[in-house]
Amino acid sequence: MRILLVGAGGVGDAIAKIAARRDFFELVVVSDYDVSRAQRTVDWIRARHGNDVAARFATAQIDASDPDVVASVAREHAATHVMNAVEPKFVPSIFAGALAAGADYLDMAMSLSEPHPTDPYTQTGVKLGDDQFAQTTDWDAAGRLALVGMGVEPGLSDVFARYAADHLFSEIDELGVRDGANLVVRDEAGNEVFVPSFSIWTTIEECLNPPVIWEEDAGWYTTPPFSEPEVFEFPEGIGPVECVNVEHEEVLLMPRWVDAKRVTFKYGLGEEFINVLRTLHLLGLDSTTPIRVRSEDGPVHVAPRDVVAAALPDPATIGPRMTGRTCAGLLVTGTGTDGIPREVYLYHVSDNEWTMAEYESQCVVWQTALNPVIALELLATGEWEGRGVLGPEAFDAAPFLELMARPVADGGYGQPWHVEDRSA
Amino acid sequence: MRILLVGAGGVGDAIAKIAARRDFFELVVVSDYDVSRAQRTVDWIRARHGNDVAARFATAQIDASDPDVVASVAREHAATHVMNAVEPKFVPSIFAGALAAGADYLDMAMSLSEPHPTDPYTQTGVKLGDDQFAQTTDWDAAGRLALVGMGVEPGLSDVFARYAADHLFSEIDELGVRDGANLVVRDEAGNEVFVPSFSIWTTIEECLNPPVIWEEDAGWYTTPPFSEPEVFEFPEGIGPVECVNVEHEEVLLMPRWVDAKRVTFKYGLGEEFINVLRTLHLLGLDSTTPIRVRSEDGPVHVAPRDVVAAALPDPATIGPRMTGRTCAGLLVTGTGTDGIPREVYLYHVSDNEWTMAEYESQCVVWQTALNPVIALELLATGEWEGRGVLGPEAFDAAPFLELMARPVADGGYGQPWHVEDRSA
Repeated sequence: MRILLVGAGGVGDAIAKIAARRDFFELVVVSDYDVSRAQRTVDWIRARHGNDVAARFATAQIDASDPDVVASVAREHAATHVMNAVEPKFVPSIFAGALAAGADYLDMAMSLSEPHPTDPYTQTGVKLGDDQFAQTTDWDAAGRLALVGMGVEPGLSDVFARYAADHLFSEIDELGVRDGANLVVRDEAGNEVFVPSFSIWTTIEECLNPPVIWEEDAGWYTTPPFSEPEVFEFPEGIGPVECVNVEHEEVLLMPRWVDAKRVTFKYGLGEEFINVLRTLHLLGLDSTTPIRVRSEDGPVHVAPRDVVAAALPDPATIGPRMTGRTCAGLLVTGTGTDGIPREVYLYHVSDNEWTMAEYESQCVVWQTALNPVIALELLATGEWEGRGVLGPEAFDAAPFLELMARPVADGGYGQPWHVEDRSA
Repeated sequence: MRILLVGAGGVGDAIAKIAARRDFFELVVVSDYDVSRAQRTVDWIRARHGNDVAARFATAQIDASDPDVVASVAREHAATHVMNAVEPKFVPSIFAGALAAGADYLDMAMSLSEPHPTDPYTQTGVKLGDDQFAQTTDWDAAGRLALVGMGVEPGLSDVFARYAADHLFSEIDELGVRDGANLVVRDEAGNEVFVPSFSIWTTIEECLNPPVIWEEDAGWYTTPPFSEPEVFEFPEGIGPVECVNVEHEEVLLMPRWVDAKRVTFKYGLGEEFINVLRTLHLLGLDSTTPIRVRSEDGPVHVAPRDVVAAALPDPATIGPRMTGRTCAGLLVTGTGTDGIPREVYLYHVSDNEWTMAEYESQCVVWQTALNPVIALELLATGEWEGRGVLGPEAFDAAPFLELMARPVADGGYGQPWHVEDRSA
């Protein structure tokens, strides 16, 4: 397996560092528009693991917005797999470039949605991933696999859904992804400061788009942002966090392969973050349409959302000043294989102190990066195989979760996941 | 009197329109960096009042940031008075240009403050107007007058303070400016939308700077933003509005000429606006320091606050979609001239429907513009005279308030003001 990793931002950097401890691949080409970022990642691997490990990594400059460039870099390095680790707006070009180069493809976020033109808070328009699923026959005909949504959420959450359907439930009422954290960032003086732990650009996209819900009878439909607020009790000391409906890939992926009456995604944004997002929307600062702004060099045109992102610290840099844990999980309700009503929360927790010490990577970013590496390893060993455009729930969940939880000393990733029984 | 009006934004435009109904001056030169804005104002006057009135108005291009340009335009038109109607950051250059040209000067906001370098929320640093008052001997020596802070607040509020001291009170415990409104802006569909009714740039400056308070024993001191919240009951149907301490010129002006034990300014921002300002600060979007932002033309440098201002509608343009009233007033507590404890609220209310119909100017902007025109008329007739740098309370309040309230048919401005007795 020869992997072209596109993007050496927070998640791309962590993917390379996690892969550095594994031996299922021949080469990882770490590529970025700014090649110095790719070089920094490989330098870290060399410093940490030595020249032999670093020899399985190369760097490349890439323009992810140009399918021809993506294909060309993939061909140059004879890539068998293209791993997309940049912002979702680059999905179409990387997706096309990989297919053109005859490589398999993985991403952690799917092609973007467009709201319904007249009724955005009731009906879906172009849905997340629609552009990718529309090309499934091309991928299938080429004998190639596009494994989409293979981060933590979407990704691990979808693996949990398949596991619950195969092993825990005879009938599923609801698959409800619930994501929450108790992360705190402090400034030099020790005061708590507001810094999103994930790309604010992507967070705005997710949270201000109309949330999508799937129901067996109604199909996919939308609601206004921040709908159906609930306080969810997260495990391992995180505690209660206010969660709201958010547009997320799982709702588009799970119903394609897993039987359930309802699929939802709720994000534990917390009150402060919800207020920040509402205010940005109120002021039009979430907009991606450039506006004219005065500057010392005369009038310029910038998108307000890009300014918001630029004004905040890069989430990849806040790890050293952050404490706490993040939890990714799936609440499943329905009837157990024993015929009894059942409610379980399947989850994985990532602790920032540990990820910083082991990987110099903050926990939200690291938890996202872990899952595509496991998936790549299963594809390399042949335990997972497929063609066309597929979600994580199209594959058997058992070998994924087994490899993930198996201790490092036994050749696994040493990352336990849990099933918490919440049945009344 | 020949007036160089610097700035044809909302307030400058309204000053010219109000002046067009008066005959105390020979010429008003409406100037702006964008001369088409000045032309629009004069075109409106011509359409509304005819060629004879418009003949007393001229237009000019001006760079308000350059004192030499301001002086040169003032000399070219033989201006006797320079009326500053642009953002307070241009105060130093217009102030210097007027003195160099041998003209008297008026403004509606004073030179900006700088917070105390180490203890900003307790001690003052450079205070509002300090730079201007430091030059009073120059103005005095030149025999010229700089009348500073002569809008509505500061301006009318300071006139009220002098009036209360001269006519209503023997001893004043507190001069408390209280400003509030019940303005609502709707979009085309009739839904309420968030649009500040005054320059967001200036509002951020006022509201996020440490509020300043004056006390007889302590002198000037500061507090954290949004301190001492109170719900103030505004008259004429506006009702209760949450008010907080805000840095404002009155607190710096009133103690120089009026005896009082305490001087405060509280702004009826309302909960939503306070939340918006807090959030902008939390995200660093109030900053005036340029940051690097990507754009379609490559990286550019813009100040986040300029982006916030550019993303919102120009407050001068929202008049047609706005309803409600704004109230500027001064709550005075102390001992009446009769020796009995007394509490009165002196105020003036401006109704948007009326200002739009009469002047095509929204009410907050129009109310600001009214007062410098009255002051210019008193200076033209010689009822007010002075030299050096003076605030409105340095002049006799009675002729101002009389001319303001006198019916239009009798040669006044037809703008009644009120004294509401709130004594227990």
